[in-house]
Amino acid sequence: MKLVPLGDRVVLKQVAAETTTKSGIVIPGSEKEKPQQAQIIAVGPGGVVDGKEVTMQVKVGQTVIYSKYAGTEVKLEDETYIIVKQSDILAIVE
Amino acid sequence: MKLVPLGDRVVLKQVAAETTTKSGIVIPGSEKEKPQQAQIIAVGPGGVVDGKEVTMQVKVGQTVIYSKYAGTEVKLEDETYIIVKQSDILAIVE
Amino acid sequence: MKLVPLGDRVVLKQVAAETTTKSGIVIPGSEKEKPQQAQIIAVGPGGVVDGKEVTMQVKVGQTVIYSKYAGTEVKLEDETYIIVKQSDILAIVE
Amino acid sequence: MKLVPLGDRVVLKQVAAETTTKSGIVIPGSEKEKPQQAQIIAVGPGGVVDGKEVTMQVKVGQTVIYSKYAGTEVKLEDETYIIVKQSDILAIVE
Amino acid sequence: MKLVPLGDRVVLKQVAAETTTKSGIVIPGSEKEKPQQAQIIAVGPGGVVDGKEVTMQVKVGQTVIYSKYAGTEVKLEDETYIIVKQSDILAIVE
Amino acid sequence: MKLVPLGDRVVLKQVAAETTTKSGIVIPGSEKEKPQQAQIIAVGPGGVVDGKEVTMQVKVGQTVIYSKYAGTEVKLEDETYIIVKQSDILAIVE
Amino acid sequence: MKLVPLGDRVVLKQVAAETTTKSGIVIPGSEKEKPQQAQIIAVGPGGVVDGKEVTMQVKVGQTVIYSKYAGTEVKLEDETYIIVKQSDILAIVE
Repeated sequence: MKLVPLGDRVVLKQVAAETTTKSGIVIPGSEKEKPQQAQIIAVGPGGVVDGKEVTMQVKVGQTVIYSKYAGTEVKLEDETYIIVKQSDILAIVE
Repeated sequence: MKLVPLGDRVVLKQVAAETTTKSGIVIPGSEKEKPQQAQIIAVGPGGVVDGKEVTMQVKVGQTVIYSKYAGTEVKLEDETYIIVKQSDILAIVE
Repeated sequence: MKLVPLGDRVVLKQVAAETTTKSGIVIPGSEKEKPQQAQIIAVGPGGVVDGKEVTMQVKVGQTVIYSKYAGTEVKLEDETYIIVKQSDILAIVE
Repeated sequence: MKLVPLGDRVVLKQVAAETTTKSGIVIPGSEKEKPQQAQIIAVGPGGVVDGKEVTMQVKVGQTVIYSKYAGTEVKLEDETYIIVKQSDILAIVE
Repeated sequence: MKLVPLGDRVVLKQVAAETTTKSGIVIPGSEKEKPQQAQIIAVGPGGVVDGKEVTMQVKVGQTVIYSKYAGTEVKLEDETYIIVKQSDILAIVE
Repeated sequence: MKLVPLGDRVVLKQVAAETTTKSGIVIPGSEKEKPQQAQIIAVGPGGVVDGKEVTMQVKVGQTVIYSKYAGTEVKLEDETYIIVKQSDILAIVE
Repeated sequence: MKLVPLGDRVVLKQVAAETTTKSGIVIPGSEKEKPQQAQIIAVGPGGVVDGKEVTMQVKVGQTVIYSKYAGTEVKLEDETYIIVKQSDILAIVE
């Protein structure tokens, strides 16, 4: 089973946030602070969305930062995904 | 009796969410968490909606994920349907 | 006396909702749950509404489902009508 | 003194709502329920309102139903008027 | 010192509301109910406001009714003015 | 150091409001009531802002009245400035 | 690792606000008042954003003032960044 997003929607999967201190100690992501980094799993076709032409600028596999309060959590076969609009993706992490 | 949606509206019927754990045990959908998966029962003709041309991109029979807070519940002959706008459908489950 | 709706407005009259169970027993509509089915009594001429061209797609006599929180209740000669915009009509019941 | 409405505004004067029961008994309008029927006293010239061309479709003397929560009450020489936008007029009573 | 309004703004000065009863007794304006009548002191040039062309249709010296919750009170040399947008002026009192 | 506003933004500096009574007594501005008069320190270039062409109509040095709830206070080298959009400037004081 | 902003987004890094009194004493930025000055770390490509053409007018390295309530805080490798839309940048500090 897979999710095929419509329009300008993008399917994301959260990356477990690990915090690396300056001295190099890795602190695994606490559950309290929701990580904002996610990997792109699927990208919608774009096209006319709400009367406006949208061109998709992100690709499957990229790690991105998305807007904290955006998106819908979806559970499929024991995995949790987040579906956001491309405009809720703030930046690509390279 | 059947529902014929207008404009960019889509008639959905919720799919009882079953959770399959990784080890393969199937847990039937609890009633507490509203399943977001639904099957498409009928699709409106699209056309000009709120001054914008809308082309319908979903088809009867598809299983879709829709936005949690969208749609209107409708009861017809002992069955419950949800009517949403196509833009409230986030992804198709294939 | 009759109501002649303006623009994209439609005059509805609620249909007393009867629930038919699968075994065929008819339970008359309770007053608690507001029925969402209504019959179309009059249809406005459409035209330019809020700067956008609207074509009327519903007809007098059709039974329709309309959005729960939409419309204005109007009492005229001891009868109650609901006036909604066409965009608040979700589907036609055939 | 008279009120000359601007743009798409319409000056209304409430009609004291009388309820006529089916058997023909006339119950004068109670003060509790604000009547929604009003007579048109003056009609603005229409034209470009908020960047959109508006054509006036109502006339002085018509009895109309207007949206419950719309309009501004104005007192002039001991009379109360309501000024609404034409789009807040739902239907003409004929 | 004088106020020169920008765009579609209009400078008003409230008219002390006097209530004339039908029998002709004049009751001076109480302070409790904010009078909605005002005289136009200055009119902006109009032009493109928020991307839309606005033509000014009111003139200095006219008495107008303006929307209750609109406008900004401004004190200048011991006088109080209200600055509103032309669209907040509902009607001219003639 | 100086502030160079972007787009349709304008940098203002509040003018200490002095109240002159009719008899000529000058009462210095109390701190309780935020003065709405300000002097223009810098004017943005205008251009396309939020998809709309904006032409700047105010000039450095003018004293203006601006909307009470608009703008962002900015401290720079011990001075406080307010940055507003041109559309939040209601009138020029001449 | 670096942040590559999308569309009209800009990556900022707050400048520790130091307050210099008129007599020249430097008071390091207190943590209570969130500094509004930030340095531009990365600038998105602009282009069509929400159906409107946006041209980027800011450059990497500039110190800017941004709107208090705008932007999303992002932590990456022990550093905190703020991602804002260009329209939330009020002025450049020169």
